[in-house]
Amino acid sequence: MANVEQIQKLVNDYIENQSFSGNPEELYAPIKYILHQGGKRMRPTLCLLACELFGGNIDDCMVPAVAAEIFHNFTLVHDDIMDQAPLRRGMETIYHKWNSDIALLSGDTMLIKAFQYVLSMKKEYSYDVFAELCKVALEVCEGQQFDLNFETQENVSLDAYLEMIRLKTAVLLGSVLKIGAIVANADDNNQKAIYDFGINLGMAFQLQDDIFDCYGDVKVFGKMTGGDIADNKKTYLYLKALELASEEDKNVLRQLFAMPKGRDENKIQTVLNIYDKYNVRGVVTDLMTKYYEDSLKNLDNVNVAEERKQVLRDYAAYLYTRNK
Amino acid sequence: MANVEQIQKLVNDYIENQSFSGNPEELYAPIKYILHQGGKRMRPTLCLLACELFGGNIDDCMVPAVAAEIFHNFTLVHDDIMDQAPLRRGMETIYHKWNSDIALLSGDTMLIKAFQYVLSMKKEYSYDVFAELCKVALEVCEGQQFDLNFETQENVSLDAYLEMIRLKTAVLLGSVLKIGAIVANADDNNQKAIYDFGINLGMAFQLQDDIFDCYGDVKVFGKMTGGDIADNKKTYLYLKALELASEEDKNVLRQLFAMPKGRDENKIQTVLNIYDKYNVRGVVTDLMTKYYEDSLKNLDNVNVAEERKQVLRDYAAYLYTRNK
Repeated sequence: MANVEQIQKLVNDYIENQSFSGNPEELYAPIKYILHQGGKRMRPTLCLLACELFGGNIDDCMVPAVAAEIFHNFTLVHDDIMDQAPLRRGMETIYHKWNSDIALLSGDTMLIKAFQYVLSMKKEYSYDVFAELCKVALEVCEGQQFDLNFETQENVSLDAYLEMIRLKTAVLLGSVLKIGAIVANADDNNQKAIYDFGINLGMAFQLQDDIFDCYGDVKVFGKMTGGDIADNKKTYLYLKALELASEEDKNVLRQLFAMPKGRDENKIQTVLNIYDKYNVRGVVTDLMTKYYEDSLKNLDNVNVAEERKQVLRDYAAYLYTRNK
Repeated sequence: MANVEQIQKLVNDYIENQSFSGNPEELYAPIKYILHQGGKRMRPTLCLLACELFGGNIDDCMVPAVAAEIFHNFTLVHDDIMDQAPLRRGMETIYHKWNSDIALLSGDTMLIKAFQYVLSMKKEYSYDVFAELCKVALEVCEGQQFDLNFETQENVSLDAYLEMIRLKTAVLLGSVLKIGAIVANADDNNQKAIYDFGINLGMAFQLQDDIFDCYGDVKVFGKMTGGDIADNKKTYLYLKALELASEEDKNVLRQLFAMPKGRDENKIQTVLNIYDKYNVRGVVTDLMTKYYEDSLKNLDNVNVAEERKQVLRDYAAYLYTRNK
């Protein structure tokens, strides 16, 4: 079995060899630009790891793995239009480097390309992979719309927030793992167990992202912290603080999050002080740890030899202990 | 065999019975809104007519026919964002009635839904239909990007314009006809002939739209004429006028089309006067007629009994003689 680094290299080499070229250039150059940027390649890596876990041939799985990566990048391109985000992974976004029309259309093209990729895999799997990709793609759009709704929604419950990040982030991790299992002909119980592993891992991953946004090491994290606070994002940290805080602190939080978006170091520091006062970071870290531990329990339910699971346990641990 | 009106009614009833509902409401309400607006339903109608032409079962073809209609509406929703268009079919666009974020995301959702629909058709056809839909979807995006490029491109050739409308409009008509043929198990030659029929019909249709935009009867056409001129759109009429006009008139045209976008009745009238001076309407009408006649020749190449083709000949004639 290949280890994570070997799989990541396979993925990167494969994507690097895809030209993504076409006419007009304005449509295809942005696709090449974003897909050749690298990144963690978490989704294709998980997809291939699941395929190996169940004894499948990772060559058969490379196409849907890369399709999932293209799909994921499509969501980033369109999200960056909505967020008017200038930077991603320390590089200019397509929205900013070209313009919003090009980001819209090249994003559409990436979504279609993701589906088209699936057509080039073995026909015996393509229908089921297509179905899974359609299902998860709709869920990710729903998650993004919930996220947009929360911006103007006064009361967002903790449960609603968790459901939003399940849709926006976790389901895609679940689905890529399931797709790997499909290609390896895993049975339904194993497909479900590995999907659930991805859901819990994804929940932990997103909560960790929220924590990094407040407390990450700027040098390691690669961007300034406090971005979510500046953008008035109702993250789990904010919602938990609202639940735990005194009436007075609640009012301060609400007023600060009613300010226009934009960096204000005083605002960020005041919010972080309230978070600290109620140990919000600790509470969210505990919840993240619970999801991480649940994901490991899901792996217990996977019916293959324990030693085959070690690489996924290691990858989950690597994500859990990451610092960016 | 069913006639066009019967087929259009089948399509409208089928679409009317689709709820397109889901959560969050903000994502799905716009989809229902646009798909329940009606319209000519040209794409599903052509798809089902082709299926009948080759003796297929139109029940088997309804799903991909509707998928093509959903896809077509997705392109309208995203185009309206790029054009910042307030109205379409005399009703508010999604972009204008909701906002651009919602139009972006509900458009994405429609694109995914179109693909997902195909999964619910008979498996024996779904792979080929999927492949055709992916191919044409990419082409339509390419056409739209060429159209955007032309806005800022000084010199656009007549050939480049024709290639743009082939991609943006004609290929989808070709593909829906081909999909109908696929479902009816038509052979490759027949698939090609009916595809080519759609291409030529689509070219005629788009040139006619360009003519209507300048010369349509406002009461029948449902919107003010001169919109393309107001938007500085380099249509075939404009490009042909540039080719035919004197240096002096060319300069006037170029200067008028360098003005900021927006309605200016003087500008529109001056441009129309130049078009008239060089009989541009006549020249473009001749080209449209040539495409229409070519489409009928493509039908000659379809290898089925002549009487089965009559309904498509009638439909083509109806489109050719339409006044809106």
